[in-house]
Amino acid sequence: MNFFFRPKGIALIGASATPFKGGNSILKNLITGFDCGIYPVNPKYETIEDVRCYPTVADVPDPVDLAIVFVPAPHVPAIVRACADRGIKGVMIESGGFSETGEGGAALQRELLEIRKETGIRLWGPNCMGLVDAVKRYVFSFVSPMIWQEGLTPGDVSLVVQSGMLSGAFLMDLMTHGVMGISKVCSIGNKMDVDECDLLEYLVDDPDTGAIGLYLEAIPDGRRFTEICRRSKKPVVLLKGGRSEVGAKAAMSHTASLSGNGAVIRGALAQSGVTEANDFKQMMDISRALAAFPDTAPKRDARVAVLTYTGGAGIVSVDFMDGLGLAPALLSEESRAKLKTVFPEWMPISNPVDLWPAVERNGAEKTYGVALDAVCSDPGVDAVLIHAFAGGFALKPDLAGMAETAKGAGKPVFIWLLGTIDAAKEFHQEAQELGMVVYREVYRAVECMGALFNRPLPAASEIPSARAVSLDEAQEKILSESAGALDEHFSKKLLSAAGIFVVEERIVKTPEAAEKAASEFGLPVVMKGLLPGEVHKTEKNLVRLDIRSFEDVRQIFDELTREMDSRGEILIQPYVKGDLELIAGLVNDPQFGTCVMCGFGGILAEVIADVAFAMAPLSHEEALALIRRLKAQKLLDGFRGAPAVDREALAQTLVQLGDLGATNEKIEQVDINPLIIRDGSPIAVDASVILGEKP
Amino acid sequence: MNFFFRPKGIALIGASATPFKGGNSILKNLITGFDCGIYPVNPKYETIEDVRCYPTVADVPDPVDLAIVFVPAPHVPAIVRACADRGIKGVMIESGGFSETGEGGAALQRELLEIRKETGIRLWGPNCMGLVDAVKRYVFSFVSPMIWQEGLTPGDVSLVVQSGMLSGAFLMDLMTHGVMGISKVCSIGNKMDVDECDLLEYLVDDPDTGAIGLYLEAIPDGRRFTEICRRSKKPVVLLKGGRSEVGAKAAMSHTASLSGNGAVIRGALAQSGVTEANDFKQMMDISRALAAFPDTAPKRDARVAVLTYTGGAGIVSVDFMDGLGLAPALLSEESRAKLKTVFPEWMPISNPVDLWPAVERNGAEKTYGVALDAVCSDPGVDAVLIHAFAGGFALKPDLAGMAETAKGAGKPVFIWLLGTIDAAKEFHQEAQELGMVVYREVYRAVECMGALFNRPLPAASEIPSARAVSLDEAQEKILSESAGALDEHFSKKLLSAAGIFVVEERIVKTPEAAEKAASEFGLPVVMKGLLPGEVHKTEKNLVRLDIRSFEDVRQIFDELTREMDSRGEILIQPYVKGDLELIAGLVNDPQFGTCVMCGFGGILAEVIADVAFAMAPLSHEEALALIRRLKAQKLLDGFRGAPAVDREALAQTLVQLGDLGATNEKIEQVDINPLIIRDGSPIAVDASVILGEKP
Repeated sequence: MNFFFRPKGIALIGASATPFKGGNSILKNLITGFDCGIYPVNPKYETIEDVRCYPTVADVPDPVDLAIVFVPAPHVPAIVRACADRGIKGVMIESGGFSETGEGGAALQRELLEIRKETGIRLWGPNCMGLVDAVKRYVFSFVSPMIWQEGLTPGDVSLVVQSGMLSGAFLMDLMTHGVMGISKVCSIGNKMDVDECDLLEYLVDDPDTGAIGLYLEAIPDGRRFTEICRRSKKPVVLLKGGRSEVGAKAAMSHTASLSGNGAVIRGALAQSGVTEANDFKQMMDISRALAAFPDTAPKRDARVAVLTYTGGAGIVSVDFMDGLGLAPALLSEESRAKLKTVFPEWMPISNPVDLWPAVERNGAEKTYGVALDAVCSDPGVDAVLIHAFAGGFALKPDLAGMAETAKGAGKPVFIWLLGTIDAAKEFHQEAQELGMVVYREVYRAVECMGALFNRPLPAASEIPSARAVSLDEAQEKILSESAGALDEHFSKKLLSAAGIFVVEERIVKTPEAAEKAASEFGLPVVMKGLLPGEVHKTEKNLVRLDIRSFEDVRQIFDELTREMDSRGEILIQPYVKGDLELIAGLVNDPQFGTCVMCGFGGILAEVIADVAFAMAPLSHEEALALIRRLKAQKLLDGFRGAPAVDREALAQTLVQLGDLGATNEKIEQVDINPLIIRDGSPIAVDASVILGEKP
Repeated sequence: MNFFFRPKGIALIGASATPFKGGNSILKNLITGFDCGIYPVNPKYETIEDVRCYPTVADVPDPVDLAIVFVPAPHVPAIVRACADRGIKGVMIESGGFSETGEGGAALQRELLEIRKETGIRLWGPNCMGLVDAVKRYVFSFVSPMIWQEGLTPGDVSLVVQSGMLSGAFLMDLMTHGVMGISKVCSIGNKMDVDECDLLEYLVDDPDTGAIGLYLEAIPDGRRFTEICRRSKKPVVLLKGGRSEVGAKAAMSHTASLSGNGAVIRGALAQSGVTEANDFKQMMDISRALAAFPDTAPKRDARVAVLTYTGGAGIVSVDFMDGLGLAPALLSEESRAKLKTVFPEWMPISNPVDLWPAVERNGAEKTYGVALDAVCSDPGVDAVLIHAFAGGFALKPDLAGMAETAKGAGKPVFIWLLGTIDAAKEFHQEAQELGMVVYREVYRAVECMGALFNRPLPAASEIPSARAVSLDEAQEKILSESAGALDEHFSKKLLSAAGIFVVEERIVKTPEAAEKAASEFGLPVVMKGLLPGEVHKTEKNLVRLDIRSFEDVRQIFDELTREMDSRGEILIQPYVKGDLELIAGLVNDPQFGTCVMCGFGGILAEVIADVAFAMAPLSHEEALALIRRLKAQKLLDGFRGAPAVDREALAQTLVQLGDLGATNEKIEQVDINPLIIRDGSPIAVDASVILGEKP
């Protein structure tokens, strides 16, 4: 991919001499920043913008390995072929008019893909804004050359944005406000060849990139994407468009993206160490926080010291912490003693630390300096949130000194800044260059700090391997010959073969056999009628719970037989009353493949819809992490006097489910509902396995 | 309060000739903007800043009705007395050094309060930044005179900010960024006399104020505050500091504010039509949305059309809607036909409406104009979210024309804006003057639109009156003579007297009586041991559920008798198995008085902690609104095949609870747990009433 990011020479096909036209803007941008050969191609001109122009791409001299194309769509296939013939390695197609414009455009795009396959040439786009590299000052894009006057603020966050216009607009906004440092912005448009995976793979090894932010509407190759994220030593932050149901519909009509199941995506991303964002600037804000403090280890409820000049904002900061996985720090005696050296006598010392009375006595430089030193050397403080005001009230601290203190202590410092417009911008830039991160709203500052400490880390950079589940001959036969829903009894045999603990049960043929089973299991029991292919037993009135007498057992046997017109089989089990009802299962996601699911069942399922997913196979660690992602966590830890759920055993069950799915392609779906927790351990009480069509 | 807001003359005590001192800044600010008499008081000078100076306040000429005081705290009481003697009606004390600085300062503050009582003079502050009025250009504050150069952008949002420094810093930030229009900013500091209620009362009638935003750490007189909010025809938006438990602790150490119970405050505010904010700029952002569209009626799931130049942002906008009480509009055939006149053939029309291909063909002015006209005349559209870019891409729409279209249709238009720094500021100001609201982040735009359509409206501007509950003699006697927890049986008698439906039950003295009761009620039954003053029956093992035989009834009678050492009484009831477990009750809140509570009980209580409060007494409408505030709503509407909860009956129960509490001061607390829903109707199955100490 180096020919896209560091080409040795660029042919610009569709170069134009008309100001404000895209083909002119691209040329001007190249002239301003690109440091190797620039070869405009246009048969109508000798020169454009004083640069020699070539009639065709074949005439362009060496070295040239990249072409940027900005001509009407119908001309593009011939041009790409000419580029391949000329030995050019990559083409950035910035023109629109392809699959986003209906069938005619889609045909052109298919034609391009043919040429790609035939010649091996790599294609970026079409329908995109190309690439901007603020560090190298390469602008391979038709964004307005005005960008150069307003300032390309270099930084270490690289962005990949699917939507073309959005990447341009977002870039112009970020760049001209001068406070968000950018490394590369890649706009990939229709991503017919070069896609988010290719770019991500490049960026995770790019020395100019500290963190990667992405806006994507679909992640068609979810497995490859997440594998790259797992291996990345750099933080990856993703804003996924179409996470809600209505948003997903909108995404489909937008770029025919498949948006997918939000909960599956969330799980797969967390499993792979990706932080999810929910808005554009917020994605940038989180990315720069993660880029700024790469050595900060994740920590649940990290303890934060707040240094403020206004108690009110201190309180509001603390109000946000709990919901964002942070906690206010309890200051040590030593910290308090240090703060007392600048605080007036009457002023109680607590966290948030209200510095204002001390600032009035000692000035801002001394007060902020002493306070930051106190909290940075306090072992009970993991991070510091400083409230600052620029442009008055004699509140200017010594930023350089503060940065030194923070770096010495290895503690991340976040700043919430208010201020008059120019002073605030200057302060922002200075603080940022010194390695602190600055935000203009309290919530955003605390949110980004929360994202830093609560970012997911992959359990390992390698994908775990699945342990094959050994099935007996009968099971193998059914798996290979059947399709659709398997009955509960057989489904549980498969689970059992995978090592999952299932309820004891028996198929009974007569009322007497039922009674015998009940007496062996002990009352109360459960009886179910199993009809071939029927997964909605309860709705069909084929489930009888809590049967308390042998008389009832016999009578219910007859009832169920009648209900099923003697077609099905009757299953009898002990009635398992547990402390908690969970659900677990497998789904086959079009983007992320076979995924394991676990969540709360029963009434809770309807109220809190608390389920978590991860891609199969799972390591034991990953299974534990999946469980930790359940929001109603605390129910697992000994709820209302019940014993705590044995997380190791539950994780084991999920690993086994994952192995079953990962090693048996035929299995499309598994639902264990309920997975009852009894004496802390999970036991599958009802289950159904659904197979794909016969091969 | 007019003498604070529109004084006829101002004495400035503590006027200083030294630049940058507060007493000098106040004077400069007065000179720049105040249009009546300005009388600096300082015995050391003849004139300051060319204004004649007076040795004492007694020497100041008429008319003068306001004094601004900025001298060290110990001098303040004598000065206030002199002001009262001079006939001055109000004093704005901006100096610090009072109750916020410990006991010495608190004594000074008490002294001031004495003078206030004695003389009737009104006191604003101390420890505050005073008042800024950007419309009248009155700056009665020591904020830097720089504020005048940077621009006081007048607008119609007035702010009341408890914290002094915060109001100053926030004001400087808002003002100098030039895009947030402000009417008045009131900083009330220690609010020893003039408090948020006084200011709110003034502002709701202030013709220059369209919406009121407040930052408060405590609302000591919650009843008065909410009564004013109820009557207000203007939107009130409140950011309450100390809403979380840790935040509340921080608030207490900050200004000794009592932060209170977050859920009670939330309920009381919603009941009174107050919108809650959670951050400073967000409070301002919500306020300006509510001020801009005062005629927009609240509507659940209001239907939004999104006009965008970038499909990606359209998708993200839609992703936010569901969580914020909005929904994407389905465009009518007519709208689609209008859009087709500018859309290319191949472009499908959906909402979000991606305008980019049409802009490329027709230009931004025409395209945005046609599109806005289409959606504004669509009866299926309640509001429009426009995505705009300023400063390039030929995306400038005709703002004036758009504003006219929107106004003609009476539909609120929100704009999400990206752009180069100067162009975006200009666009922002222009759009705002035209009556549209502009935001720089997608989420904030959708959030503010959600706040507009989902703002709470009080059921009526008047407080409902309580219906007295008629108790019999025995009940009256116990109410007046007892204290602490009443037993379950008697508690339910009180509830029953209030009209609340309680489970049938009987106190039984012998096993035989128990058996007789059980046979009358029908098995299964519940038996409980009632010990005087004991409210934790379950923990004491005094509750037996689901008793299924008469033998068990007799045996359990003996067991409970033994458990209680024959001290208590034994209660027997039918075993009520309902469809849903709720809880309801009364609490006595120090800020908001007697409040009714309702929420989900059982396992749900521990997972979702979903309870809502409202101040008693409640009207029927208010009780219904309380129920609608429960997050897990949908459980009430026929869950898992159960009949829907009869909301009228449930509301009735809550009204009756409120009446009971509002007309019996002695009742401190009521807990109905569970309030079982059986066949849709609520029935109190266990309850305890707790009385205050004997008078």
